[in-house]
Formats: sequence, structure tokens, C-alpha cells
Amino acid sequence: MNQTIEVMKNHRCIRNFLDKKIPDAIIDELVAVAQAAPNSINGQQISLVIVRDKEKKRRIAEIAGGQTWIAQAPLFVLFVADFYKAKLAADKVGRSLVIPESIEATIAVSIDAGICLQNVITAAESLDLGIVPIGGIRNDPAAMIELLNLPEYTFPINGLTIGYPADRSHKKPRMPMSAFRHDEAYDPAKLPGLIDEYDKLMQPYLKSVGRENEVNWSTNTMNYYSFVYFPKVYPTMKLQGFKNDK
Amino acid sequence: MNQTIEVMKNHRCIRNFLDKKIPDAIIDELVAVAQAAPNSINGQQISLVIVRDKEKKRRIAEIAGGQTWIAQAPLFVLFVADFYKAKLAADKVGRSLVIPESIEATIAVSIDAGICLQNVITAAESLDLGIVPIGGIRNDPAAMIELLNLPEYTFPINGLTIGYPADRSHKKPRMPMSAFRHDEAYDPAKLPGLIDEYDKLMQPYLKSVGRENEVNWSTNTMNYYSFVYFPKVYPTMKLQGFKNDK
Repeated sequence: MNQTIEVMKNHRCIRNFLDKKIPDAIIDELVAVAQAAPNSINGQQISLVIVRDKEKKRRIAEIAGGQTWIAQAPLFVLFVADFYKAKLAADKVGRSLVIPESIEATIAVSIDAGICLQNVITAAESLDLGIVPIGGIRNDPAAMIELLNLPEYTFPINGLTIGYPADRSHKKPRMPMSAFRHDEAYDPAKLPGLIDEYDKLMQPYLKSVGRENEVNWSTNTMNYYSFVYFPKVYPTMKLQGFKNDK
Repeated sequence: MNQTIEVMKNHRCIRNFLDKKIPDAIIDELVAVAQAAPNSINGQQISLVIVRDKEKKRRIAEIAGGQTWIAQAPLFVLFVADFYKAKLAADKVGRSLVIPESIEATIAVSIDAGICLQNVITAAESLDLGIVPIGGIRNDPAAMIELLNLPEYTFPINGLTIGYPADRSHKKPRMPMSAFRHDEAYDPAKLPGLIDEYDKLMQPYLKSVGRENEVNWSTNTMNYYSFVYFPKVYPTMKLQGFKNDK
């Protein structure tokens, strides 16, 4: 329908990057689109940490469970859930900062992080850069907090690795669109058949990329979701001031 | 730098819409870019509910605390945090769905919702549509669940109103960019001065849009953040299977 929509429809994650720096002017644009995105109540509760230092990227790769592409790519961006600025506002106007005690705060700031992140992704891909989002930093959030000096009422919510692609990976098939889209009301009855269909579709795809061991969508998803795969998030959030108990 | 980046940099929220339908082909494209966005572990834990029914939009406007533009605009999209599909996968492969008990699940799915949402926003704005995100549905999530028939392990995480703008609103000034961007490590020391600067900048802006009563950023933000403004989120999530206690 237009170039912008084509960029989004052609998205795929990249995990192999050229040894080539990203010009400062492009990084400035990526930051500008992140800041231009909408945010909840104009609280501006997202901050970015731009990381280009090799040693820091190597350490983040380790924190994220050995994701070597983080060290390989020229740029890592951390999206920080940031109520520290609101804490400064609270002190300035002499009121108490209560919102980080609530699950609503965690939801609102995580949505805002996703919104910012996706603007950076779309801008990067429109400039022929490749990206991969890094949720794996939540494997050890305390290590990220220490490494990047995050204050109270902040939390390292998600990362993004950006660079020039060394190769174009396959585009992963999604579920049939009718499993994603409901009209006027959610229709649970249609889903089991669509999931069966998708499980069958994923088998040849997984074979073509050498990952038959994942079996299909249902099996692979349950390899993650039958336990709490990042158990340090909850206690580390508490230490940072996010109680999540109301 | 290019048209896609210009669209994102020119974002503003619209709260006044023409009485003009959005063609089905455009709605299909908005759904397609939402589904093409990256998602955590390929769990595909977002679903959309497309709402065009007038009476339903009127009801959603009410649930969201009297946001009349929801009823006025031709299209409302609900972004659903959806582990119901994972529950079907769990039953299919004979394993237990544990992840919704954790705060990690709420974070990951909220980020994914923001990512999807922002693709829809960028696509809509690239087609000269106007949007406003609707976090206000979390004012009464149980009412949204009932209205749109959401099953267990799902939650109405955010809404989006879309239509043809009746007027172009002002672009709201953001904090100085250095309050948003940190390089190599977070620098808390620079923030108080930047917040003072922004508070001063917001006064003439608020006056120009007739909202002097908000005073400045610090005061307005604390009018929200000194209490839990959506207290029903936590108990309603629990009823839906999101325990948020580990």
C-alpha cells in the first residue's frame, strides 16, 4: 500500500551482522523517533541507554544468556522503564510517588517500551539496518542495573541489537490471520483447528532452517511456558521499587 | 531522512474525527502489519478485536471514562494479552501452563502489545489516518472482558481509536532529548535541571491549548502517579489467570 507498510510487512530478525559502524546521524534519528512515540499520560517513563562500548556489549551478550550477536553488532539500545523522573517530580511538588506499587504501572511502562522499541525497529529497517529485540536481558536484570548504573524506580525492560545484516534470514510463518484477528468479539471456538493447521505448517519451515528439534509451535511454546523462565524479574523489580502487589 | 521516519516524527494524538468509514482493505493492512511485528519467543500472545459496531464503541467510550472520540471514530482496535492460545497448546501437548503466574509474562505480553500497537499507528498515520491510544479501557477491564467475550488467560491490555482527523492537534513538546537519552550509562545527575527546564517550557504550551490548570509536567504527572489510578487491573488479572506473584 506504501513503502512504510512494506517495511513493516517485510520484518525479520537478524542475528548475524557486518563489522560496520552506524553513523551518529542515524543513531540520532533512531533516538528521535523513539522519543516522538505516544506515551501514557505524558509521563515520559521510558529512557534509552545507547551502548557502543565493545566490552559492555560483550558483557550484555553474556547477561542475556550467550547471545553472541549482541557483541557482534555495533549498537545495543536499552529501553529503561523509568519512574525515576516521576520520583524527582514527586519530590519537587511535595507529593508521594505511589504508582510503581501497582501492576498498572508495570503494564503501562511495558507498553510504552514496546511502542518506543517498534518505532526504532521500523526506522532502522527503513534504512536497511537489521535488528533483533533482546528480552534476554531480563535473565539477570540486577546485572544490567549494575552495568548501566540504573537508579531506583527504573528497570531494564528490553534491549535491541542493531547493525548492518550479514545475511537475510528466512521470514518465519505466523499463525493463520484468523487466529490473530477477531471481529466484534473474541471467538475461542475457532482456535484449536487453526493451531493444528499452524503446527503442521511449522514442520517444513523448521526443517528448512535446521531446527526440527523445536517440533512445532505448540511444543516449542510449551518448552518456555511450562515454567517461569526469568525468575529474577519479580524479586529484582521489588528491590527497584516496583512492588506489583496492587 | 526518509518518509517513514517523517511519519513517526510528526506523530500527534487526534481526538476529533470525521464521520467517514475506513475501507476494509485498509483495515486488513493494519491487521497485517500488527501481525508482522516481532514477538516474544514466537508465542504470538497478542490478538486483536476489531470493533466497528456503534453500540459497542459507545459502551467502550463509557468504560474508558467518557472518552467520546472512541464512539465518534469509525474504528476501535483492542489489543488482547492472550495466553489462551498457549493454554490450548499446553492441553494439546499435555503440559502445564505456568508462565501467566509470573510478572515476566505480564511484561513480555505488554511489550508485545506496544510493539503491535505502534506498527498499527505508523501504518495508519502513513495513510493520513489519525489515532489515539486508549489505556483507559483498563479503568474497568472486567467490563471489556464481558463486552468482547474474552476467555481465561486473556486480558484487555490497550485500545486504539482510528479515523480520519477532523483537525490536526498541536504537537506536544517532549522533555529535552538529553533527559531521554543516556550514552553508555544512565546519568541521574543531569535530570533535575532538565525537568526544571521542561516544566518552564510546558507552561506556554499548556496556555496555548487552554490547559493551564495542568500547571507543568511535574504537577500534572503527580496528579496521576500519587495514587493507583486503575485499581481494578490487579484483581481482574488474577481472575483471568494472571497471578503476577512470582
